[in-house]
Order: sequence, then C-alpha cells, then structure tokens
Amino acid sequence: MYDFAADIADCALAVETALDRHLTAARLSGPGPAADRLVAAMRHGSLNGGKRLRPLLVRQTATIFGVPPAQSLLAGLAIEAVHCYSLIHDDLPAMDDDDLRRGRPTVHKAYDEATAILAGDALLTHAFGLLSHPDCHPDSSVRIALVSELVAGSGAGGMAGGQMRDIEGETAPLDASGIATMQAMKTGALIRASVRIGALLGNADPRALSALTAYAEAAGRAFQLADDILDVTATPEAMGKATGKDASQGKQTLVARVGVDAARAELKLIINEALSALRTFGPKADGLRATARYFGSREN
Amino acid sequence: MYDFAADIADCALAVETALDRHLTAARLSGPGPAADRLVAAMRHGSLNGGKRLRPLLVRQTATIFGVPPAQSLLAGLAIEAVHCYSLIHDDLPAMDDDDLRRGRPTVHKAYDEATAILAGDALLTHAFGLLSHPDCHPDSSVRIALVSELVAGSGAGGMAGGQMRDIEGETAPLDASGIATMQAMKTGALIRASVRIGALLGNADPRALSALTAYAEAAGRAFQLADDILDVTATPEAMGKATGKDASQGKQTLVARVGVDAARAELKLIINEALSALRTFGPKADGLRATARYFGSREN
Repeated sequence: MYDFAADIADCALAVETALDRHLTAARLSGPGPAADRLVAAMRHGSLNGGKRLRPLLVRQTATIFGVPPAQSLLAGLAIEAVHCYSLIHDDLPAMDDDDLRRGRPTVHKAYDEATAILAGDALLTHAFGLLSHPDCHPDSSVRIALVSELVAGSGAGGMAGGQMRDIEGETAPLDASGIATMQAMKTGALIRASVRIGALLGNADPRALSALTAYAEAAGRAFQLADDILDVTATPEAMGKATGKDASQGKQTLVARVGVDAARAELKLIINEALSALRTFGPKADGLRATARYFGSREN
Repeated sequence: MYDFAADIADCALAVETALDRHLTAARLSGPGPAADRLVAAMRHGSLNGGKRLRPLLVRQTATIFGVPPAQSLLAGLAIEAVHCYSLIHDDLPAMDDDDLRRGRPTVHKAYDEATAILAGDALLTHAFGLLSHPDCHPDSSVRIALVSELVAGSGAGGMAGGQMRDIEGETAPLDASGIATMQAMKTGALIRASVRIGALLGNADPRALSALTAYAEAAGRAFQLADDILDVTATPEAMGKATGKDASQGKQTLVARVGVDAARAELKLIINEALSALRTFGPKADGLRATARYFGSREN
C-alpha cells in the first residue's frame, strides 16, 4: 500500500542529503576551485528544507517504469537546482524584493545582491552539469534528452518566459487566456519537465509520455491555483512567507477574477483531470495520484 | 594562405546572422511562446556586433580536424550566448553598474533590471538548448560532452566562480596566485571551453586535446592581460566602454602590481607559450596562431 507521507519525507531527505554532498567546491566542475562564498550562497539558497516536490515528481514518474529512486535522484537534483536558482533570482530587489524565504533571510539578504545573482547563475549551470554526468543515466542519448527537457522547462519558453509575462502583467493586465499561458510557463513548465524527465529516465513509450505530460500539465495548474488560493486565505506563519502579495502587487490570478469559492471548485476539476490522465497506469502511479491530491489539499 | 581578417569577419557575420535567426520567440523551446519583451532583451544583449572571439576559437579549433565552419557554428553560438549572458549580469547595478556596452545602453538601461536578470538567465539556458540540438552534432555522446565542457567553463568552478573571486578581491586584496586563479576562471575558463569544444567536435584524440587545452589556457591569460593593459592605456572611445575602472574599483590585476612595461613583456612570453602548444599541428592551426597574436596586439 502506497504511503505518501513516507514517500515525500524519504525523497526530501534524499534530496537534502545529496545536494549537501554535491554542493561543495570540490564537486563543482571547472578549471578552478569554486569560491567559498559562492558555494556558501548556493547552499544557503538550496539547502533549506524545501518539500522537494519536483524531485518527488521525477521519482514517482520513474517508479512507474521500475526505475529505483536512487537512479532518478540526480535528475531530481538538477530540477531542484533550477527551482532554487529561480527562487534566488525572484527574491532579488529588482524582482519580488523578498527578505524572507521559508523563514530565513533570502540569499541577497544573507550575502549581497551580486552574490545572489551569481549563486543563481551557478546553480542553473550546475543543473546541466548534473544531467550531463554518466551517473544520471548510462545512455548519453537519454541524458541529452533530459537536457532538452530542462531547457524547455526553465528557459524563455518556460519558467523564465513565464516570470517575464508575470512582471509584464503587473502593468498591462492579462486576460484569462494570458493568465493561463503565464502560469503554464512560470510554474507549469518546470513541473511538466519534472514528470517528462522521470518518464524519459524510464524509457517511456510515446503514448505513456503523452499521458504523463497531460497529467503534469493538469498537476501544474492545480499547484498554481492552490498557491493563488493560499495567497488569499493563508497566514504568513503557515506559509513561511508573506501572503496577500498578489493583490498588493497587482498580480493577475484566477482567484482575483472569480473569487475563492469558484477557484476551489475549479481546483477539484483540475485534480480530477490529472487523475484521469493516469488511468492506464494502475497502482504503479499511486505516487503521482497522491501528489496531485496533495496539490489540492496543501495548506502551505 | 590563411587570412585572419577574413576569418574573423566571416565568423562574426555568421554568428550575428545565426543568433538573429535563433533568437526569436518561435525558436526558443518550451511549452509556451517566449514573451516578446524577454526575446527583445535577449537580442539587445547579444546582437551587438561583438567580435565573436569565442565562436572564432571553436571554429578555428574544429578546422584543424577538418570540421567545416557551418558544422561548428551552433556550438559557437552556445558559447557566445553564455558570454553575452555574463555581460548582461556583470553590467547590472549590483555588479559592475555599467550604463554602456559597445556604445549602446546596457540591457538593464534599455529595459529594466528584472528584465536584464531574466534575459541573462534565459540566454544561459538557451545555450544548453543549442548544444543539445541534433544539428549541433549528430552523436549524442559528443553533445553531452559539449554540455559538460560548457558547465566547466561557465559555472561555479569557471566563469561565475571567477567573477565571485573578482568581487571578493575588491575588499580582500588577492596575492599574485589569487589573481592568476581568479583570471583563469573569470576569463580563461570560457576561452578554454571554446577551444576544447572545437576539439571535441573534431573528435580530437587525448594528446591533441591536451595540447589544445594548453594553447587555450595561455591564450586566455594573454587575452586577460591585454585587457588589463588596455584598461590602463586605452581611451574610452577606442574601447567603447569606460577605462581605468580596474584601479578606481580597486580591482586586482597584474598590471597594477608590476606596471605596464613589465606586463607587456609578460604578454609576449605568454603568446609564445600559446604558439608552442600548437607546434605539432602544422598550417591547419594557423587560425589559432593568428588569434593568439591578435590577443597580444589588439587595441580594443
């Protein structure tokens, strides 16, 4: 019987432990030894007790195809490194200007802005180093496919592009379709990449990859919608970060347009959509099912 | 007879044309269309008539092994995209705080800081997309080796780590060995990666790769030393950027320690070292020889 609480805790511990081991000057490739301050800032921005939901999605998807968690961990670390770089840059004064992240000073507060910019850059670069390592997958054609997926998830047509659209939306309000596109890119693209990378690690056939992509896109929408609802309903203490920021920053969300009750109803529909996409996979996909349900019920 | 002026002009044109073609919303991979503003900022920061010395090194190295310029272009674009991302981030107020680059407003001046941060992030990510594309090289094991090289050249143990050491040096002066390490990482690592990527595209054997790496390390030192000399001797008009900044920012350079004349003598020695590393390659390496000499004679 699948145990979500055990799975998420085990994955988070594995990610924290492995990131800790990988983020040392000696393990960051290059002709010179990484500067201590840079490594410290990279660690501050990533060893933070996060829930590690993206590595969890990689692992749960790879599990469907019989890939043991240890063999999907490195790819999960790569995605987590990209997620952490994006948080470091998003927190900068020129972006969201946040002083706290998970109750601790953000990287530019603990260090300085230049160090935070470089630490984000270096984490992004390191992610591709992790994917290119033979330990990630023995077959280089799979590794290069993972690189392509991570680019699609995080670059101009994915996360970074979505962040730009979000910023633009603060001054030129987006319509419903513009909000959907922005969110599919800003949050959805990396969640989509996590699931697709798990599927590629498992050598999924095109039909399975397509079904899992549909799951991931619905799960990503559920994750973002739950986040937007929480921004309205949760306390800063429960979230470990400021809430009510969307409204105060003029950010465009579905909740702002239709209200909390309608948004909650929509969230249920989206989670059912995610679950439907998994119908052919049987009990092996119970992990992904539990994560989709978790996205709909999370309180922080 | 090899013609350096024709080679550098032809390469610069090929890079400018191909970057122009590649940096459009439709060609930036991801689930969504890249935001117009982000693409425009990426273009502003990269389509700037640069000398494209790193793609030139890729091409000249690949040429030794009979690889036609068209087949090394995509890898050259990837390195140039990384170089351009680093300039965009280095110019930010939190870093070097430059308003002009090649006589035009820097990206954060032409757009804003958030856009410049994201444009740099997206160019870095796009570089890995270029390397992972089958057009870059038909063999995925070669493409993944290129990814590893680019990570080594640009990440925490390469360019980003060198930039961090440079910033640290402004407040805690570096000794001669610290300056050498910082410069080998900040400027040298990406030059080294350019040459090694050219060699990998040509399927170089370990001995050739090692000789070319020695060339690249010397060429990188020559490039940086020439830059440091120019910062003291050139006018802002000739450089298209502010000069005398190293001294005013307390930056550590060899020139500041030993003076211009001794630095010029050292520059000659380093260029001879670069040329010696090429002695087994015959006339096919005339391009790399000319570039090393150019590094020693350039006036901007």
